[in-house]
Amino acid sequence: MALMLDDALLSSILDEVRPLARLGKVADYIPALAEVAGDKLGIAVCTVDGDCFAAGDAHERFSIQSVSKVLSLVLAMGRYDEAEIWQRVGKDPSGQPFNSLVQLELEQGKPRNPFINAGALVICDMLQTRLSAPRQRMLEWVRQLSGVEDISYDTRVARSEFEHAARNAAIAWLMKSFGNFHNDVTTVLQNYFHYCALKMSCAELAKTFLFLARQGRAPHLAEPVISPLQTRQVNALMATSGMYENAGEFAWRVGMPGKSGVGGGIVAVVPHEMSIAVWSPALDNAGNSLAGVAALEILAQKIGRSVY
Amino acid sequence: MALMLDDALLSSILDEVRPLARLGKVADYIPALAEVAGDKLGIAVCTVDGDCFAAGDAHERFSIQSVSKVLSLVLAMGRYDEAEIWQRVGKDPSGQPFNSLVQLELEQGKPRNPFINAGALVICDMLQTRLSAPRQRMLEWVRQLSGVEDISYDTRVARSEFEHAARNAAIAWLMKSFGNFHNDVTTVLQNYFHYCALKMSCAELAKTFLFLARQGRAPHLAEPVISPLQTRQVNALMATSGMYENAGEFAWRVGMPGKSGVGGGIVAVVPHEMSIAVWSPALDNAGNSLAGVAALEILAQKIGRSVY
Amino acid sequence: MALMLDDALLSSILDEVRPLARLGKVADYIPALAEVAGDKLGIAVCTVDGDCFAAGDAHERFSIQSVSKVLSLVLAMGRYDEAEIWQRVGKDPSGQPFNSLVQLELEQGKPRNPFINAGALVICDMLQTRLSAPRQRMLEWVRQLSGVEDISYDTRVARSEFEHAARNAAIAWLMKSFGNFHNDVTTVLQNYFHYCALKMSCAELAKTFLFLARQGRAPHLAEPVISPLQTRQVNALMATSGMYENAGEFAWRVGMPGKSGVGGGIVAVVPHEMSIAVWSPALDNAGNSLAGVAALEILAQKIGRSVY
Amino acid sequence: MALMLDDALLSSILDEVRPLARLGKVADYIPALAEVAGDKLGIAVCTVDGDCFAAGDAHERFSIQSVSKVLSLVLAMGRYDEAEIWQRVGKDPSGQPFNSLVQLELEQGKPRNPFINAGALVICDMLQTRLSAPRQRMLEWVRQLSGVEDISYDTRVARSEFEHAARNAAIAWLMKSFGNFHNDVTTVLQNYFHYCALKMSCAELAKTFLFLARQGRAPHLAEPVISPLQTRQVNALMATSGMYENAGEFAWRVGMPGKSGVGGGIVAVVPHEMSIAVWSPALDNAGNSLAGVAALEILAQKIGRSVY
Repeated sequence: MALMLDDALLSSILDEVRPLARLGKVADYIPALAEVAGDKLGIAVCTVDGDCFAAGDAHERFSIQSVSKVLSLVLAMGRYDEAEIWQRVGKDPSGQPFNSLVQLELEQGKPRNPFINAGALVICDMLQTRLSAPRQRMLEWVRQLSGVEDISYDTRVARSEFEHAARNAAIAWLMKSFGNFHNDVTTVLQNYFHYCALKMSCAELAKTFLFLARQGRAPHLAEPVISPLQTRQVNALMATSGMYENAGEFAWRVGMPGKSGVGGGIVAVVPHEMSIAVWSPALDNAGNSLAGVAALEILAQKIGRSVY
Repeated sequence: MALMLDDALLSSILDEVRPLARLGKVADYIPALAEVAGDKLGIAVCTVDGDCFAAGDAHERFSIQSVSKVLSLVLAMGRYDEAEIWQRVGKDPSGQPFNSLVQLELEQGKPRNPFINAGALVICDMLQTRLSAPRQRMLEWVRQLSGVEDISYDTRVARSEFEHAARNAAIAWLMKSFGNFHNDVTTVLQNYFHYCALKMSCAELAKTFLFLARQGRAPHLAEPVISPLQTRQVNALMATSGMYENAGEFAWRVGMPGKSGVGGGIVAVVPHEMSIAVWSPALDNAGNSLAGVAALEILAQKIGRSVY
Repeated sequence: MALMLDDALLSSILDEVRPLARLGKVADYIPALAEVAGDKLGIAVCTVDGDCFAAGDAHERFSIQSVSKVLSLVLAMGRYDEAEIWQRVGKDPSGQPFNSLVQLELEQGKPRNPFINAGALVICDMLQTRLSAPRQRMLEWVRQLSGVEDISYDTRVARSEFEHAARNAAIAWLMKSFGNFHNDVTTVLQNYFHYCALKMSCAELAKTFLFLARQGRAPHLAEPVISPLQTRQVNALMATSGMYENAGEFAWRVGMPGKSGVGGGIVAVVPHEMSIAVWSPALDNAGNSLAGVAALEILAQKIGRSVY
Repeated sequence: MALMLDDALLSSILDEVRPLARLGKVADYIPALAEVAGDKLGIAVCTVDGDCFAAGDAHERFSIQSVSKVLSLVLAMGRYDEAEIWQRVGKDPSGQPFNSLVQLELEQGKPRNPFINAGALVICDMLQTRLSAPRQRMLEWVRQLSGVEDISYDTRVARSEFEHAARNAAIAWLMKSFGNFHNDVTTVLQNYFHYCALKMSCAELAKTFLFLARQGRAPHLAEPVISPLQTRQVNALMATSGMYENAGEFAWRVGMPGKSGVGGGIVAVVPHEMSIAVWSPALDNAGNSLAGVAALEILAQKIGRSVY
């Protein structure tokens, strides 16, 4: 029998997974991420009925990192025709680490999907082409989606990422060599790192991504964010490519479309029912939050939800 | 508004996709497959309520090929503990062609998942260890699942596959060199090719796979085939690795767990609702039935079903 | 019986290979190279006894491109200890295209050898660290080696290369991500492209590289360029890695250490005997001069010279 | 000033490199190799003038392993036209481990060169096609070349290799899948492992390979083994592909064409001057004899010989 969803349930799940946080490793390639306390742990759920539940550090903001790749994709889906996007980036799992150039070279500069670094950089390149102020636009839009006015970039993180940009610069230049990158590399990298440096809490993330559980509609916005069909498509992409190399393992254990970031955040969606955000900075080998994945797995079992 | 599921709807879908069959290419690596008429086209659906619908060549048998990889996995799940299976084969998408050795060598002989050739061969190797007559056992079990007594192997196909076994033999030997293959290579290849050479119709396949839409229970069997949790796991694997390199594209377009074979068959599942089988021998570049994928995409739209 | 080396012999060899120039393809990734006449054909030989022979367009200058990679390596060997160089770049054939990033990523940013782009970029990075004016220094040194005062960079080619620098920028950034690139990427790329844009004739190249046939000593210079041991080492590297992916084929056919450039030039060395330069802009699939390799093969046979 | 070649010089070189043997690792994939004493150390040189020098364990037989790949190639060169051989195997360095399948799959089953396992297996496949008794023929021929009547296969090693044949079987089957392997895999593997299991001493090897320093002629045989041009070609192949991944490093340090085996033997050639064989079972990471390479390096320096 599935349990009732409430704050107490979320809290008990956090208690169960807390020991795992000690086994993972906080991302340390930039100081601003390395100094985050490894024992932070939070979770928030928003249902399509309008309820929101939270536990732990659900209201503390952190660097959402690659979770922003979903946001930039959805932003691009509103600015480009479907064919324009998918001729420049694929829809399939890569089977490779998120920042590898091997496949990108073999496949002539077309990234496998928009949720690996190469793919997200192409999307940012497209946004740079069509938006007059891509960073400002993203910020306004995320504030709108979340309903929170003071969401902002952690400029220290963005600057720090840019100082460690070598691998992403290599990816961008490699795509440029194949004609699949049109704008100035430095400019687009700056945008990309700012998107990664969005600071949001679990509660804000769950609210922001609720439209993916509501066929593309945010409850407080008159206009749909994307169409129902596009919503299914984004969820499908998250399900097959949202967890770096571990999409299959995550589907197996959790059974929900999800997207993780190296800041330790994961957003997951139960279509027609709820959006979930979890945060624990210690990562597993694939770069996903160790306690975060476990929390989602237990939640899925306790409330009896899986898309499969 | 989602349409009513019935034979007429299925029939109209087949009419819509029939022109696509001419654009694909029938598998021709063995004569027995090459001589199948490219214009064959069939579909069948079984619902959890007990209804079955069919259209086109839904009652003509064909070579199910890699669709059998789901059957051998489920058979192994009944004979081995979870840990025993997943230490020998992974759960993640490969991002590579189904018969590639590149990743297998780099990853020390552990296949990415049980739905690429390498993974299915490991599963067959495990079945050979635990079953006294693996071919006979599979046949009995499929007859039980489908409720059809005369399902059998197409021995001409099996023999023909074995004569063209070089690539699969290379895969098996490579795994043996890493200690991940225990039985005689020829014996296991013979079993593997027999499983691929199972002859079944769309109607029989839909019936056989209905347990994946029913939390592991076949309607006519007293005992569950697998547990509800295992059912979700198998569906998750199909969703992320069931369509060769195109798992993401298939999730995007169709939104259901599915498994295809080079005979042109595809099985798909809407958990808690229905199992679907479609057949059209002409394949796309990734080895999936061209008209078959299109038929599933249209069906998903018309009945408003997607797991995402 | 080996033939006598003289201008007439060289001339007859050019006549023999001239038809081949039509089968190759002039490098066209930048206009300045693409517009070179495909029928240019020249050869020059300098012997350790002081004789120089020439035929065809041996006195017309062209872009030496990757032939300059030998020059930058030798320059670095004079500025760095052996261990300093070879901890940052390897000595073995790559077995990959000259501008591939695949191996570079797998091997953690350490290029296989100094004659592929990645390796030459590391060498340029090292020169940037130790030389106050790397471009001016190279120019002065090449003028000294060749004894020709007006050798210069084709700044149009250098500028044009820089505009098409994406692939090389990707390589440099990838090495930077592994800590194997220390200076500003743009600055080093500018140096690298200038070195590639050195304009020299076959006669000037043969004279310049004569020190490799004379145990490191140029006939007109008091100081040795490099030691006898270093000379053998550079020749060994040219023999195993000087012809892109075709080092083995070139050794098989020609049997001399050699280094080619996409401008169509090739420099070859018969240790203790002679240096040779040949030029024909039309390239084979591996990027080596089609008629140039053939001319060297015939020359080797006619004069009975091979190191093997 | 180069030193005089004699037994005492060889002996002093062995003394110098003896400590290195302790740093390497004796091949242990089969018991018959693993039990060879790691402190065995021998060297032998035969000059084109008819002198033979030796030191250490130069008269003790060991398993020549991949050194036999040169013998099988030369045997094939006498049975096939040049074009027949080189359409089935390349001439270029692989840049990959000797038993890798990655490149072989990417390059459609055509091995890079005849000195990696895949290439040698193709050569053995060709010998099987043209020779009625390939094992007996090789034995007779090696006895003829060495002038030693009791050279034989170590059948215990051959049998043991066959029991660990999985990787080589995978390679053979992969080539078969591309149509580049014509005979029965087991039969050809048996031949291949017997060739590897030839037992010879340094003195016998130096004598056997002397024809490569004498333009294809063995001093005691009326007929040339191969032509002068073919001799240069074989030496060129050894120079660029004879030392597994370390062809460049070996050329750099030793400067001679050479071929090594995991039994710890290396054969090297100074064209027109001498053949050399060295043996020390402890290997470096690339699979070459650690002390053996060092001994050749010192010998090359002391006698002032290098082809470069």
